Amino acid sequence: MIRLTIWNEYWHEHHNEIVKSIYPDGIHAALKMGLAGDDLHISTATQQEEQHGLNAEKLANTDVLIWWGHKTHDEVDDAVVEAVQKRVWEGMGLIVLHSGHFSKLFKKLMGTSCDLKWREADEKERLWVVNPAHPIAAGVPEHITLEKEEMYGEHFDIPAPDELVFVSWFEGGEVFRSGCTFHRGQGKIFYFRPGHETYPTYYNKDILKVIGNAVRWAAPSGAAAPVRGNHKPLEPIAVKP
Amino acid sequence: MIRLTIWNEYWHEHHNEIVKSIYPDGIHAALKMGLAGDDLHISTATQQEEQHGLNAEKLANTDVLIWWGHKTHDEVDDAVVEAVQKRVWEGMGLIVLHSGHFSKLFKKLMGTSCDLKWREADEKERLWVVNPAHPIAAGVPEHITLEKEEMYGEHFDIPAPDELVFVSWFEGGEVFRSGCTFHRGQGKIFYFRPGHETYPTYYNKDILKVIGNAVRWAAPSGAAAPVRGNHKPLEPIAVKP
Amino acid sequence: MIRLTIWNEYWHEHHNEIVKSIYPDGIHAALKMGLAGDDLHISTATQQEEQHGLNAEKLANTDVLIWWGHKTHDEVDDAVVEAVQKRVWEGMGLIVLHSGHFSKLFKKLMGTSCDLKWREADEKERLWVVNPAHPIAAGVPEHITLEKEEMYGEHFDIPAPDELVFVSWFEGGEVFRSGCTFHRGQGKIFYFRPGHETYPTYYNKDILKVIGNAVRWAAPSGAAAPVRGNHKPLEPIAVKP
Amino acid sequence: MIRLTIWNEYWHEHHNEIVKSIYPDGIHAALKMGLAGDDLHISTATQQEEQHGLNAEKLANTDVLIWWGHKTHDEVDDAVVEAVQKRVWEGMGLIVLHSGHFSKLFKKLMGTSCDLKWREADEKERLWVVNPAHPIAAGVPEHITLEKEEMYGEHFDIPAPDELVFVSWFEGGEVFRSGCTFHRGQGKIFYFRPGHETYPTYYNKDILKVIGNAVRWAAPSGAAAPVRGNHKPLEPIAVKP
Repeated sequence: MIRLTIWNEYWHEHHNEIVKSIYPDGIHAALKMGLAGDDLHISTATQQEEQHGLNAEKLANTDVLIWWGHKTHDEVDDAVVEAVQKRVWEGMGLIVLHSGHFSKLFKKLMGTSCDLKWREADEKERLWVVNPAHPIAAGVPEHITLEKEEMYGEHFDIPAPDELVFVSWFEGGEVFRSGCTFHRGQGKIFYFRPGHETYPTYYNKDILKVIGNAVRWAAPSGAAAPVRGNHKPLEPIAVKP
Repeated sequence: MIRLTIWNEYWHEHHNEIVKSIYPDGIHAALKMGLAGDDLHISTATQQEEQHGLNAEKLANTDVLIWWGHKTHDEVDDAVVEAVQKRVWEGMGLIVLHSGHFSKLFKKLMGTSCDLKWREADEKERLWVVNPAHPIAAGVPEHITLEKEEMYGEHFDIPAPDELVFVSWFEGGEVFRSGCTFHRGQGKIFYFRPGHETYPTYYNKDILKVIGNAVRWAAPSGAAAPVRGNHKPLEPIAVKP
Repeated sequence: MIRLTIWNEYWHEHHNEIVKSIYPDGIHAALKMGLAGDDLHISTATQQEEQHGLNAEKLANTDVLIWWGHKTHDEVDDAVVEAVQKRVWEGMGLIVLHSGHFSKLFKKLMGTSCDLKWREADEKERLWVVNPAHPIAAGVPEHITLEKEEMYGEHFDIPAPDELVFVSWFEGGEVFRSGCTFHRGQGKIFYFRPGHETYPTYYNKDILKVIGNAVRWAAPSGAAAPVRGNHKPLEPIAVKP
Repeated sequence: MIRLTIWNEYWHEHHNEIVKSIYPDGIHAALKMGLAGDDLHISTATQQEEQHGLNAEKLANTDVLIWWGHKTHDEVDDAVVEAVQKRVWEGMGLIVLHSGHFSKLFKKLMGTSCDLKWREADEKERLWVVNPAHPIAAGVPEHITLEKEEMYGEHFDIPAPDELVFVSWFEGGEVFRSGCTFHRGQGKIFYFRPGHETYPTYYNKDILKVIGNAVRWAAPSGAAAPVRGNHKPLEPIAVKP
């Protein structure tokens, strides 16, 4: 059983009628319903809650965390960000969605600005699988077309991903590395581009399939925690002149 | 002409007689002499100087920065660290040596703890080239043996390097990924393990050869700075129902 | 249920008394016993069989293939090698063990000479986990020590692995990239170094754990086969002057 | 001085009036003129010549080889292909252009089918730089637009490239990993997509800039050839019971 926590900033749903109409109970609730599965125990947390719903106990009991944020990145408490980063290092999986690219958390884990091009123009996005052997692409058609999405364009300022799974084509002429894996400490990270709040992207069954695959992929592998610090020799060391 | 700045914490040379006898003018001075070349304009900076010798003008006029620090990582000003990180993003090359793995700067750029195993036991290290085609390994024998060095052992908590150039064998039974490349923004980064302050490692001609190669490799490539932010479409976007 | 086929050249067991005493029924039989698990349906095949036991039907019914060969690489039929390569491209997982590095199959899949240093000297090998988050390292201690093994040393002439999971330390002073992942087509490949025929390596429970993990990791992910060849446009193409 | 050899199949220029009018002296001649530089000594070779113009002496005196082929891949002599592959392993750089993706040489070096989607429809291609720090992207704008090109689409059946430098957007709705680096032995390889024979692509100054950058990047680094085969221990090996 994978313990999945879906975290949402939950701001637009309170301030924008279009978003509210698409996601009346929040993006986190839509994802919770769409990802439901027998091997998942899913809970949610939002920025409004105390410690943003991510206190030490909650984090300790989370195997994989999904992160959606946009408008209020700066109001996320640095202490919470640091605690989440440490849990990733310990092995918690992390799925960063869409505008989460600019969250304090993602920027700290990447070590780069995570900046990009963007445009809101009701335009078509087509996500192409460029790594069909990857478990995150399992059961997904060779491309997923979203009739209306926000555009994100290169250069996306991230480290070269460990694995590139999706590349997006945009109607307006740009491309984007849309599905990228990273490892930090013992934690596996997947960045997935789609999901602008004014579109019903998180009801698309292929998009949900990708996110669900990513949750399974990012779940901790069960490796023993590495030993670090001062270390006694395993072999004799010659005394030297 | 590559403008190289060699930065040194310069603490051990003032507080430890052994270090002082090996590097009477500081590790930075030894590196400056050892790296001298017609295509390099070399200057130095130390932690004791104002803004640690790395003010905005100095950084703007640095193509590649070498970083050696150990004892006083915590006393490095956060504002300086942030300014250096930004310069790396803009394209400045960075060579992080030995105990610099635990500097604020390297940790911020990696997004990981950068922790490792270590031991001071006058033991033998042998660095093997595992990527003989890499320009950083040009003119270097297939292994470099250092009779006495500090041991650093795996697991080294870094992201998987973009390229792995050297792997170290240690007398006491450990291995270590000793020469690793990374990219952050437009900046190229090389981490190189050897160089404990109580050994004359930075007088070894093969070690100097590697560092010199890395300086040339890390120098900015001259790409135009990417454009980011809101972006007008390059192709017409259909109006949708 | 993963359908695993263990392939063995099965030559040394017939020609060398030491090997026969360690693996009386062949390396394949020892691996079959050691890897037994509820989620695996295991069969074996050897070079002596018709088409080396790997006819079209057998390959079509294999999800993951383990390959051990050494002395008679050259006598493996090119047509069989080509058929196995095609199955890897289609998604069959492949685990290449020890001296299989020099098989026709592995060389064809790598595109390199796959040459290396070697020595038989009853020497100690210690395999260090350098990627503790990888599922192939799950449940494995941070290092595995084999008291006697053949040495393989760098430079190992392979493409840079997609992921490096183990690095070996050898008593005689060498290192080796011992556990490497690659992808070819939709197939996942894991090369794992240990297993010289004159040592009881394939009875070591940690070595078996790694191989068993690799079998699960390499099993096909279930992605749809990509469409290739001439392709009709998905969007209108403007007529140009 | 880099000794560059430009190899061309030189078939379409003799059989197609459009191609002849664009490249009257052959694609190789256009590339030779477009790439001229003080640090390059450029010669050409074509498939019609004895041993396809690539005998042992010629290969020994080539630092970087550019390869353009399409229609007569199958008629390239296997012995020549093997000799070129060996020279790459020894350190010769290789730039494979456009339809060279399906050459015997490239397929042997990749270990995959190298298949892809394609379409000839006078459509627009836009190549985006996704790795602005890479020396192959130096001096190139953030995207290069070609008004008419053949389409190549994903999934491109190659191993994950060591570095991804360009991604193409196509008018008809596809994307493609257009600029990819690989290493095989000591040789550096760059695959670059554009250059269908019926378009004047190799007169475009940005395309020529990329190819010229790639030639400098792929030139041998000067590392000593690795020693392989049986190897005496560098450290004493304990006699074991």
